[in-house]
Amino acid sequence: VPDLAARLRDVEAGDRRALARLLTELENGDLGADALGPLFAAGHDAHLVGITGPPGSGKSTLVNALVKAWREEGRRVGVIAIDPSSPLTGGAIMGDRIRMMDHAGDPDVFVRSMASRGALGGLAAATWLAAAALDAAGYDPVIIETVGAGQAEVEIASLAETTVVVEVPEMGDEVQAIKAGLLEVADLIVVNKSDRPGADRAARQLKAMLSTAGGRAARPAPPVVQTTATSGEGVAALREMIDQHRAQRTDAQVRERAANLLRRAVASRAQLRAAGSDDWESAVAAVADRTEDPFAAADRLLG
Amino acid sequence: VPDLAARLRDVEAGDRRALARLLTELENGDLGADALGPLFAAGHDAHLVGITGPPGSGKSTLVNALVKAWREEGRRVGVIAIDPSSPLTGGAIMGDRIRMMDHAGDPDVFVRSMASRGALGGLAAATWLAAAALDAAGYDPVIIETVGAGQAEVEIASLAETTVVVEVPEMGDEVQAIKAGLLEVADLIVVNKSDRPGADRAARQLKAMLSTAGGRAARPAPPVVQTTATSGEGVAALREMIDQHRAQRTDAQVRERAANLLRRAVASRAQLRAAGSDDWESAVAAVADRTEDPFAAADRLLG
Repeated sequence: VPDLAARLRDVEAGDRRALARLLTELENGDLGADALGPLFAAGHDAHLVGITGPPGSGKSTLVNALVKAWREEGRRVGVIAIDPSSPLTGGAIMGDRIRMMDHAGDPDVFVRSMASRGALGGLAAATWLAAAALDAAGYDPVIIETVGAGQAEVEIASLAETTVVVEVPEMGDEVQAIKAGLLEVADLIVVNKSDRPGADRAARQLKAMLSTAGGRAARPAPPVVQTTATSGEGVAALREMIDQHRAQRTDAQVRERAANLLRRAVASRAQLRAAGSDDWESAVAAVADRTEDPFAAADRLLG
Repeated sequence: VPDLAARLRDVEAGDRRALARLLTELENGDLGADALGPLFAAGHDAHLVGITGPPGSGKSTLVNALVKAWREEGRRVGVIAIDPSSPLTGGAIMGDRIRMMDHAGDPDVFVRSMASRGALGGLAAATWLAAAALDAAGYDPVIIETVGAGQAEVEIASLAETTVVVEVPEMGDEVQAIKAGLLEVADLIVVNKSDRPGADRAARQLKAMLSTAGGRAARPAPPVVQTTATSGEGVAALREMIDQHRAQRTDAQVRERAANLLRRAVASRAQLRAAGSDDWESAVAAVADRTEDPFAAADRLLG
């Protein structure tokens, strides 16, 4: 990628169009593997903040309010919003258009929607590259917002340094169970829509549940914060706690995160090498015919 | 794994306790990588059927009814149910206990619940191994049921040969959007709870939406089937369509699935090798210090 260094300088100098183009190329897999090294090298170690939770919890409104709080601190804020995909258009359903209307025209806020399917090498890999591009462009923090509930959130949480789980007190049993799974990845838990009746009780129940679970967990229970994103109530306190979580990171946490990133990079590079090898087609045929098991074939391809 | 061949013979001979123990060891990562080859070699090419959809769609009841329909055909049926995890117990919330009560005591039905977090190498890898074990034990079809909505379903769909998406007509906009994402991975779409008012309309809308989308999609629109799992209405027809989908598989589909499995195996073996290399610790430190980008470090580890 001959002109990548020059393009990264444009991106860093604030050229939004150059950044948008870079993100599209990363998402489509148009940039070769050689681009990834310079992209990561151009980073500034931005704080990656994951914000996740079940549908209907008001995540987008909360992200909007958090962006405002960080702007008041003079921070330049990047947002990657992972949206469900539309089968009709192939694109993200929510779209940049209808998001973050409050920050339209602010040159120090950059919002990108990504569709949750079709990303080359999986959603987590695509999100990671997009976050690296926003980091290279000088945005800090970079917020990753996910819609949905499940393994995707766990994967994306392993990219973020600080994971905020937004709660919905009102939902049914199966959603509650999914919610319980999300609590395990949370560094901070938000009970949003706290102007509603029952929110205080939901927050108390969560705290009780977490302190009971604390005895078994490998780490202390995450704090529970109440917000009302629509009015801004509690948002400044949440912003402060997110910043503190980063400030208090330990060497062991930095190392564990690096090990995660490295495991991911190893998988991605190995798949690229294997698919490019002369034996790839014959190995696929052997697995298809069941004359070789996939692991033996993988070992052969890796040499 | 010296006694694995003997254990696989026990499993195949119908020793349920041996199978349960094998599944636990696979889930915990207790069996080394050397076990994986023999496990896959012992398989019978069972039909893997993924059944997924948003919370509240009645998936478990439908799976229960489908098991009954396959039993009436004389098939031995395996079920892997991926459940959200509890932060309190660390285990799956729904549990084998409360599932599939109708088939308790039937030696030709085997049900296994797996927690959706903590699986070594990710949920998809753990599910894949469990499905291989049920295949080796002679269950066919093997049903993989997932709770939740998002990337996990897309990943699990790439394991299954036939993916059935169960719909919920009643839910809100954001859930509808997630649902739209799921439609893209569907080979068959079920509108369950079709005794409810509005179900016929929901099925018609889905068909219209899918035929509009058809022009852009790389494949024909999936059929829409209406069921009422609680009464059994439509379940025999659904079972028949799932079997037909397998019977009509093309060589290209078999190949594409083999390529998917092989890509996964390559990632898993490469990660194992990298983490076991003498340079792993220093590579993690270099990524943590930002003196090396993760992709360059990965290339170095892969040699």
